Amino acid sequence: MSDAVSPTFADVEAAAVRLKGKVKHTPLLESRLLNKWMGQRILFKAECFQTIGAFKVRGATNFLTKLAERNALPQRIVANSSGNHAQAVAYAASQMGIPCCIYSTATISPVKAAATEYYGAELSLYPTRPEADEAVQKAALEPGTVWIPPFNHPDIIAGQGTACLEALQDAGAVDAVFTPCGGGGLLSGTLITTNALQPDAKVIGAEPLNANDAARSLQSGKIETLTSAPNTLADGAATPSVGPYTFPLLQQLDDFYEVDEVQIAYWTQWLQHLLKVHVEPTSAMSMAAVAAWALEAKPQSTALVILSGGNISQQSMMKLWEKDYLLQPPMLTET
Amino acid sequence: MSDAVSPTFADVEAAAVRLKGKVKHTPLLESRLLNKWMGQRILFKAECFQTIGAFKVRGATNFLTKLAERNALPQRIVANSSGNHAQAVAYAASQMGIPCCIYSTATISPVKAAATEYYGAELSLYPTRPEADEAVQKAALEPGTVWIPPFNHPDIIAGQGTACLEALQDAGAVDAVFTPCGGGGLLSGTLITTNALQPDAKVIGAEPLNANDAARSLQSGKIETLTSAPNTLADGAATPSVGPYTFPLLQQLDDFYEVDEVQIAYWTQWLQHLLKVHVEPTSAMSMAAVAAWALEAKPQSTALVILSGGNISQQSMMKLWEKDYLLQPPMLTET
Repeated sequence: MSDAVSPTFADVEAAAVRLKGKVKHTPLLESRLLNKWMGQRILFKAECFQTIGAFKVRGATNFLTKLAERNALPQRIVANSSGNHAQAVAYAASQMGIPCCIYSTATISPVKAAATEYYGAELSLYPTRPEADEAVQKAALEPGTVWIPPFNHPDIIAGQGTACLEALQDAGAVDAVFTPCGGGGLLSGTLITTNALQPDAKVIGAEPLNANDAARSLQSGKIETLTSAPNTLADGAATPSVGPYTFPLLQQLDDFYEVDEVQIAYWTQWLQHLLKVHVEPTSAMSMAAVAAWALEAKPQSTALVILSGGNISQQSMMKLWEKDYLLQPPMLTET
Repeated sequence: MSDAVSPTFADVEAAAVRLKGKVKHTPLLESRLLNKWMGQRILFKAECFQTIGAFKVRGATNFLTKLAERNALPQRIVANSSGNHAQAVAYAASQMGIPCCIYSTATISPVKAAATEYYGAELSLYPTRPEADEAVQKAALEPGTVWIPPFNHPDIIAGQGTACLEALQDAGAVDAVFTPCGGGGLLSGTLITTNALQPDAKVIGAEPLNANDAARSLQSGKIETLTSAPNTLADGAATPSVGPYTFPLLQQLDDFYEVDEVQIAYWTQWLQHLLKVHVEPTSAMSMAAVAAWALEAKPQSTALVILSGGNISQQSMMKLWEKDYLLQPPMLTET
């Protein structure tokens, strides 16, 4: 942990200025058919179209650009990640011309691994997540090296918050904002931003039932950790625990959902079909929470859903499309 | 056959005026990584984001709007289609409030069938394509009924040409334009438009090797017909033959490719992954032709690829993603 203080909306605004021209302003999408079925308006912030195919490049670029502003760029960058953060750091490091090594597990999605190496990073793989995490901590102690944490840092959280900032500026007033939760970086940034810009809007998170450390942490009031590698299609939300920066923010959420694997596959198929976008299961997961919200909310309310990314391995695609969910109209009940 | 004359670029321009506000102006997309691999710039016209998820709504809407302009709207609309034309006609008819019946085969993609019914059309299914085609011809003879042909009509061809018109206006100068070929409506409209706006640009078509009636027709100089239902992932290009309007236009193409099923699956995976768009195999098929062109073209040339649509059944998704092609960088050779 650094001695930095908890991020504020001013940090998100500063990050947005910093990221201008460095990351994409991604579009808002919607589906007429889905809106009709839900009886609500659902706007999607399509971070799948972001550079590297996910929002993660926002946090990593904010982190490094802040170092550059202070003339504190390192000689070497290290990071640990199950996928999208690896690509984000590899890309951001390559933009600054700094050598980079990513520590991950052998279970890293092959296509995310290939992309990480394409951006010029070295890949160091370990049998388990704790071993990779330990190795990166050790590497970070070497002189001239900086570790870019995947979520638990104010500059990462502020960077991720810029996705929500753009989306709320484009969307106007919304009634609820939905974001997936892995380590909670995107969700924390979303919460800070929504609370500042539209304090009446609800902020709602979702994580896989099979990786429900955040839900258990919110219940127990202290950070709980997964004891083994979770089996979930939502690989971007398989993080073993939230962090000391993200947890107090997550405790301010209006609602939080645990989503089973059937619903994750169901909504990934439907979002790919309706939006014609190659969305990751981690992104589509939030739709289970949206469907539950849609039943209770005033008709014609507006929801903003942050689609985190679109990097999916062939193995995941096969699992996602194994059964045919397209012939059932969207489920409007929580399971 | 009607007594209308062959469509011209003026018809495409008139269609564009007619379609304004009725169909979407879809975006151009590109992938930095793909451009780097190809050594060329590849621009994609994303008609997957079109209303009904495919370009087909352009032709059907042009056809009906022209009838409306002459106060000649029918009491009933019929059409035959393997999928996207069905949805297009169903949608266009619903916009005009006219009852509609679609004649198709029992092998119609279930998700395209569901969408057709969602737009309020009746669906009449036959064991084989010739039987459905015969039934629609019979239905079209009933008083007050109009048949909207899937491709072989000047108003359909002119409507489909507006996709290329928009794309060339947005793209500026290009060196080649690639379009998939089923019955040849989109490809004919693309040819007319490109020849008029950028006569130096090549126009290149592609069809499935397993449904290569157009290639055989171009070779023999007369319209050849598939003798049985083809087995291809590119269901939008499974049309049994081109038509008397489209064939003479197809004979003016600069090049034409037959694409095998491995390449169709390969390029669908890669385009979904790189563009983050849920593209149909029929659309991705053209990439086999682009890869062959890229080897011969002057480096840093620009290609325009018309992505025809994004309606894919679960059954096709399973076949498409059965093998992992994402670990091999794009093939730059024709098989």
